[in-house]
Amino acid sequence: MAKNQKLKIIPLGGLNEIGKNMTAFEFGGEIVVLDCGLAFPDDDMPGIDMVIPDISYLLKNKAKVKAIVLTHGHEDHIGAIPYFLKQLNVPIYGSRLTLGLVEVKLKEHNLLSRTKLHRVRAGDIINLGNFRVEFIRTNHSIPDSMAIAFYTPIGTIVHSGDFKVDCTPIEGQMIDLAKFGELGKKGVLALLSESTNVERPGYTMSESTVGDTFDELFRNHGDQRILVATFASNVHRIQQIINSAYRFGRKVAFSGRSMENVAEVAMLLGYMKVPENVLISIDEIKKYRPNQLVIITTGSQGEPMSALTRMAFSDHRKVEINRGDLVIISATPIPGNEKPISNVINELFKKGAEVIYKSLENIHVSGHACQEELKLILSLTHPKYFIPVHGEFRHLRQHALLAEKMGILSKNIILGDVGKVIEVGPNSCKLNGTVPSGVVLVDGLGVGDVGNIVLRDRKHLAEDGIIVVVVTMSKKDGKVLSGPDVISRGFVYVRESEDLMEEAKAVARNSLEKSAKKKQNDWASLKSGMKSSMSDFLYMKTKRKPMVLPVIMEV
Amino acid sequence: MAKNQKLKIIPLGGLNEIGKNMTAFEFGGEIVVLDCGLAFPDDDMPGIDMVIPDISYLLKNKAKVKAIVLTHGHEDHIGAIPYFLKQLNVPIYGSRLTLGLVEVKLKEHNLLSRTKLHRVRAGDIINLGNFRVEFIRTNHSIPDSMAIAFYTPIGTIVHSGDFKVDCTPIEGQMIDLAKFGELGKKGVLALLSESTNVERPGYTMSESTVGDTFDELFRNHGDQRILVATFASNVHRIQQIINSAYRFGRKVAFSGRSMENVAEVAMLLGYMKVPENVLISIDEIKKYRPNQLVIITTGSQGEPMSALTRMAFSDHRKVEINRGDLVIISATPIPGNEKPISNVINELFKKGAEVIYKSLENIHVSGHACQEELKLILSLTHPKYFIPVHGEFRHLRQHALLAEKMGILSKNIILGDVGKVIEVGPNSCKLNGTVPSGVVLVDGLGVGDVGNIVLRDRKHLAEDGIIVVVVTMSKKDGKVLSGPDVISRGFVYVRESEDLMEEAKAVARNSLEKSAKKKQNDWASLKSGMKSSMSDFLYMKTKRKPMVLPVIMEV
Repeated sequence: MAKNQKLKIIPLGGLNEIGKNMTAFEFGGEIVVLDCGLAFPDDDMPGIDMVIPDISYLLKNKAKVKAIVLTHGHEDHIGAIPYFLKQLNVPIYGSRLTLGLVEVKLKEHNLLSRTKLHRVRAGDIINLGNFRVEFIRTNHSIPDSMAIAFYTPIGTIVHSGDFKVDCTPIEGQMIDLAKFGELGKKGVLALLSESTNVERPGYTMSESTVGDTFDELFRNHGDQRILVATFASNVHRIQQIINSAYRFGRKVAFSGRSMENVAEVAMLLGYMKVPENVLISIDEIKKYRPNQLVIITTGSQGEPMSALTRMAFSDHRKVEINRGDLVIISATPIPGNEKPISNVINELFKKGAEVIYKSLENIHVSGHACQEELKLILSLTHPKYFIPVHGEFRHLRQHALLAEKMGILSKNIILGDVGKVIEVGPNSCKLNGTVPSGVVLVDGLGVGDVGNIVLRDRKHLAEDGIIVVVVTMSKKDGKVLSGPDVISRGFVYVRESEDLMEEAKAVARNSLEKSAKKKQNDWASLKSGMKSSMSDFLYMKTKRKPMVLPVIMEV
Repeated sequence: MAKNQKLKIIPLGGLNEIGKNMTAFEFGGEIVVLDCGLAFPDDDMPGIDMVIPDISYLLKNKAKVKAIVLTHGHEDHIGAIPYFLKQLNVPIYGSRLTLGLVEVKLKEHNLLSRTKLHRVRAGDIINLGNFRVEFIRTNHSIPDSMAIAFYTPIGTIVHSGDFKVDCTPIEGQMIDLAKFGELGKKGVLALLSESTNVERPGYTMSESTVGDTFDELFRNHGDQRILVATFASNVHRIQQIINSAYRFGRKVAFSGRSMENVAEVAMLLGYMKVPENVLISIDEIKKYRPNQLVIITTGSQGEPMSALTRMAFSDHRKVEINRGDLVIISATPIPGNEKPISNVINELFKKGAEVIYKSLENIHVSGHACQEELKLILSLTHPKYFIPVHGEFRHLRQHALLAEKMGILSKNIILGDVGKVIEVGPNSCKLNGTVPSGVVLVDGLGVGDVGNIVLRDRKHLAEDGIIVVVVTMSKKDGKVLSGPDVISRGFVYVRESEDLMEEAKAVARNSLEKSAKKKQNDWASLKSGMKSSMSDFLYMKTKRKPMVLPVIMEV
């Protein structure tokens, strides 16, 4: 492979945004895709279930795409895989736990039998056409997380994945700093490093500090039932809760579908070790006294359908919150979730539970590197070019400033964007051109059938509701045979606004008559006349702008 | 007035919730209302402009209501006044700045001429029928804030208002701790104290610490234009920005309607002092170099229509963000606003501005008391009964625990709720009965015409859109004369789903035929048949549940 060829790094998600991480690496006519994640919908996407990256660039270059390589098993890195595979079936490389979680998804989508999954271990080097790809152990809030190095003829590119530096991790598997150092000594052409916690100074605390807190809480609340809400994928967190439960002679039950799914995979693959006779099913909790129980549950983000939320609002079939329960929320709110979490906490308190939820209490640590750890990776790899990734623009910007302080030249730092091609050569790294990119919305069974127009309509309907104006007219002479009728939804409480609705009918009638006088008798003119006079009338009366939908039936 | 009579404290808002603070005090057939605030709509209230308390209890007892007394001029304490006065015209008592801000509202609603406003000063005692009411100076994030003491024959009730203890306030007017102590010595029957920051240990920093930070920022960024976003009502914050601007020789321009309104009132009444030749209009900024300017703007919460948001998204007619601008966001996000604020920060960075937004940097302090200050008021007043107010349940609960630690008996602490009457006697304090209460939604000109049904419809429309099925039928023989037609909005992108819409028409047709066969020919049966078969069909095809609106036109 010629050394004067350029490598293209093409971010398809996860840059200038949180979620749906996906980056294509293209060299010598071949493409390897790193991660394939989903994002959760924003507030301005009502009804949408999830958001996945637009992969039309990859579909146009189907023959080039050799593989997907995965850094870890979080939804924002693997959640779009089923949708990807339905359009483009390529082999997938990932660590054991990561693939275990991918398999659950593939089974749900009936894709398991026709997908090639290749298990890799830290230190493995895989040949993927023009790329040699090495997986490097990191620490993160899910086990078996990897950074990935791409060895190409023009140099080595390192992608950090999501990581932290945990010197006392739960399973004794610390991030392979030596490998980062070794790569740095040999020369790293470009580093892509995650930026989630770049605004936080110092170090992220070790996961094992949380275990000490659990022990203390279990010791001090020996006579209460304990419920702990955390992320289902945080296997090491759950392991520590199980350890504390075992130490203090309590049984453990899981609640919540994703919690049960992940626990099953993690136990099967040996990532979660539960002593015998500790685990019970949620149906068995009534056999035990409160002080013999720990319930580990989903819902740490106040998700409306999650187990903890349902418990808090007395909507859970199997668990009722009782006076004296201790509820520990072992997580911090993801921005945007503060209000739903607060609602859950309020309800738990109202039911007489004791709730521990503040980050102060060492009941949670982040899975992402703070400034000192980010600097460590920058200094070990000392790359020629630096591309901050995995963050909103504010994070990328701050990460760039951090790198500048570490001596990387400002001109060698690329603030990229989704769809913007980063072209890397042995002595150059710059933005050059764009590819099609963006979001694809998943709503029920529909993938991509809801776009901006539908969303705009949904927002309009949500704001002010809809007025349907229906009239039946004679095809022959344009005479009104029935109506106009006016029906509203989401606009005003109709029973108390009968006068307004009667007036609205009169407005529609007048509009039709006016159009008739002007000889504007085509349906389009009649409709647009009714629409605008109705909108004007309602705005004058209410200062609201409902959607007005005129319908003319021909007989 | 007989000593065996009971005082009723009736919370009508602000308890178990944030916002729309309003409490009625009733004694001997007379009612005084403390505060009259609005709340901002939750995410599950699309289209709603504001939420105000249901005052039907007061309307039923019109003759009893003697006055509204105000603690301070924040929207969540005065915002509902125009709606209140339109139904119940009573005199209003408040401090000078508070009434100044009320006047702005009354002018907008054409109520100024027919409203009696009585200005009070700290230390004033007003006779309101059975109540003697004293106003007590406090510190808060708006000047001229008051606690209020009600002297009644059965004892003294103290309401803290919103407060902090600021020993170095900007105008030298510290909270009148001596008065709280004096009341405590004489005996306080019940204390109602605010709970906003009860989860925070320690003390809230003094407002004047922020001034030092501004000075330092102005010194270190002497060659940049400076924009500061903060709450319009935070007069002392704005004063400090003006002071720094004057010190460093910069001109000040205000941006944002509420900022201009409050500044005008505050300057007129002498609460804001601007040296001559400092203030310029926003139209004049082009006459000055960037390093000669400070723009003080609204939008610290990322509000969509606010000045800073419009500047960030290049949608402001008079201010453009330029590379090198320094933007200081002198506020912390109110829970729920994290995402919009983050979006604004991202856009500012993208335009090349430097943005300072972290609470770390001492660019903001809270206006509410932390634990040590709350304890101070509890210990100075040492009330017999304690009623934590102004907070969600989690805050009330924590405040109760704090009071217990201060020696107040658990049975003497009342966790109330909106609409629940707290009955106080010389030797008793308990919940006893309820009054009508709740929320009234304001949407455009409509006050209360949007309720649960309309909101439920709006949410339904937002989630999955609407399908209108229209058919014209003969009144005589029930024959279909035209249609059925199917029209959708917010459901699916119609141009790419023509087959689905055609199938949907067939479903409606079949449903009509089936009903005809069963002789179910009344319109109600036909409609409900179309509705359910259409819903089933669409759910099967899309796993979505749009609102289905069947319309039959008779000819």
